[in-house]
Amino acid sequence: MNASHHVRIVEVGPRDGLQNEKTLLPASVKIELIDRLSATGLTTIEATSFVSPKWVPQLADAAEVFRAIHKAPGVSYPVLVPNLQGYERAREVGASEVAVFTAASEAFNRANINASIDESIDRFLPVLERARADGVAVRGYVSTVLGCPYQGEVAIADVVRVARRLHDLGCHEISLGDTIGVGTPAKARAMLRAVADEVPMGALAVHFHDTYGQALANILACLEEGVRVIDSAVSGTGGCPYAKGATGNVASEDVVYMLHGMGMKTGVDLDRLVETGAWLAARLGTLTASRVTRARTAA
Amino acid sequence: MNASHHVRIVEVGPRDGLQNEKTLLPASVKIELIDRLSATGLTTIEATSFVSPKWVPQLADAAEVFRAIHKAPGVSYPVLVPNLQGYERAREVGASEVAVFTAASEAFNRANINASIDESIDRFLPVLERARADGVAVRGYVSTVLGCPYQGEVAIADVVRVARRLHDLGCHEISLGDTIGVGTPAKARAMLRAVADEVPMGALAVHFHDTYGQALANILACLEEGVRVIDSAVSGTGGCPYAKGATGNVASEDVVYMLHGMGMKTGVDLDRLVETGAWLAARLGTLTASRVTRARTAA
Repeated sequence: MNASHHVRIVEVGPRDGLQNEKTLLPASVKIELIDRLSATGLTTIEATSFVSPKWVPQLADAAEVFRAIHKAPGVSYPVLVPNLQGYERAREVGASEVAVFTAASEAFNRANINASIDESIDRFLPVLERARADGVAVRGYVSTVLGCPYQGEVAIADVVRVARRLHDLGCHEISLGDTIGVGTPAKARAMLRAVADEVPMGALAVHFHDTYGQALANILACLEEGVRVIDSAVSGTGGCPYAKGATGNVASEDVVYMLHGMGMKTGVDLDRLVETGAWLAARLGTLTASRVTRARTAA
Repeated sequence: MNASHHVRIVEVGPRDGLQNEKTLLPASVKIELIDRLSATGLTTIEATSFVSPKWVPQLADAAEVFRAIHKAPGVSYPVLVPNLQGYERAREVGASEVAVFTAASEAFNRANINASIDESIDRFLPVLERARADGVAVRGYVSTVLGCPYQGEVAIADVVRVARRLHDLGCHEISLGDTIGVGTPAKARAMLRAVADEVPMGALAVHFHDTYGQALANILACLEEGVRVIDSAVSGTGGCPYAKGATGNVASEDVVYMLHGMGMKTGVDLDRLVETGAWLAARLGTLTASRVTRARTAA
């Protein structure tokens, strides 16, 4: 067990959150969002994604946004890159940390990018190689770790294999994602424990969506197992375009509220985070998915 | 630790949920709700409250509802009674299990019923006495166990004292309620552990509202401590009239989903529960607060 009381929040709202929001935001709002997040005390903010604008229209302005945000000292701003072309676009505007993405489910990779898991990894091998040469840190996402909208169950052995492969290939951190939010605490714990047998716990992060309301309970179970890096999105934005009724990432406000209530440290100013969440929800024209922000901003 | 894999859900929607919903439902809908819940496999359904209709207009039809519901074999239908008059009204229509209510916070009791904690207990002593004579089981609610809208922090010692007193007075089960939903897992666990030092764990239940999104995580922590009785409300209805932005009880669907995912048994048919939750939300004209019901009924 990890006795550290410090938890690092990886704020994925500007990328994973917004990419699945239907309301298109202007670049100026995204820039202000990231700048506001930088002022909360967060130390890792995934800023955008250099994927094809055809795939993710919301993030077509990746270069403009990344260039304009204030790079606060001590804060990393990783960006998602699907391939070498995306990597090069990201580097052109000064990105110094990137993230790559695959799934633990063969069916998910097949349906979404028409590739096997191994082929999906092969596709970003050139990114990993170039990043190593450039001294750029690479984060690896493994999605569908607790279930898949196409194949249903995902074997823990597959999650372990993919996570281990990404780590062996040089990813400094592996984020284990319950993309469709179907997991429950005992399964989350068992999955994390199995991965941690092969990859050091210090190199693992957990990433939950709240589709079935289980995200915080799953995070609690994973904290008990020793994980100390948690992905979340301010205001609980996002979803999954491939899963019916899938809702957003767990809200950063709700995670921070829980952690602080448990005596853990995040370095995040919850009041500022709540203000930012309420501000973002107003820009999106939605009711915030964060229960804490709802409660704190209730009339 | 409790190694049992069976958890009893105490469905409090028809009482605690509905009493704080603004949309008044006709008795026929409440009767249908309870009958639907009886068909899900739930074994305890709090049916209504025999408080003054002036206080809770939604439940002014308590006698009519209680009389009309189908009493399924093996299912208990406790009702809330504030005093001897309520007890007598409940008994007239055949209630064989009742519940009484106090708070662990002096300020909460003072503000709501203009009494100290001890005075609030004195007020229902005649109920406990009569119930004992009648062979009627009494459940005791202790509210504000993790925080109070008036005094803020609530000392664990106060929760322990009140819970112990109710148990000593003959309550067969004590439900520990985070009425305003502010608690977090470590606090919930510490509170439960302290109470369980004085009252057998088998006589304890936990009751969380989801105002800050913490309910399922708190339930997980309490399950790990050994509690095996959980209060929840289908569709997550309810709220707290005394706390700003307070939202409803944790949704039964989300609790059952988590428990079944963890390999625990509740005897509840989740599909039927989801159907009932969706049906109730439609009657109330609201979006269900259950994430599971939202996900399962998404187009």
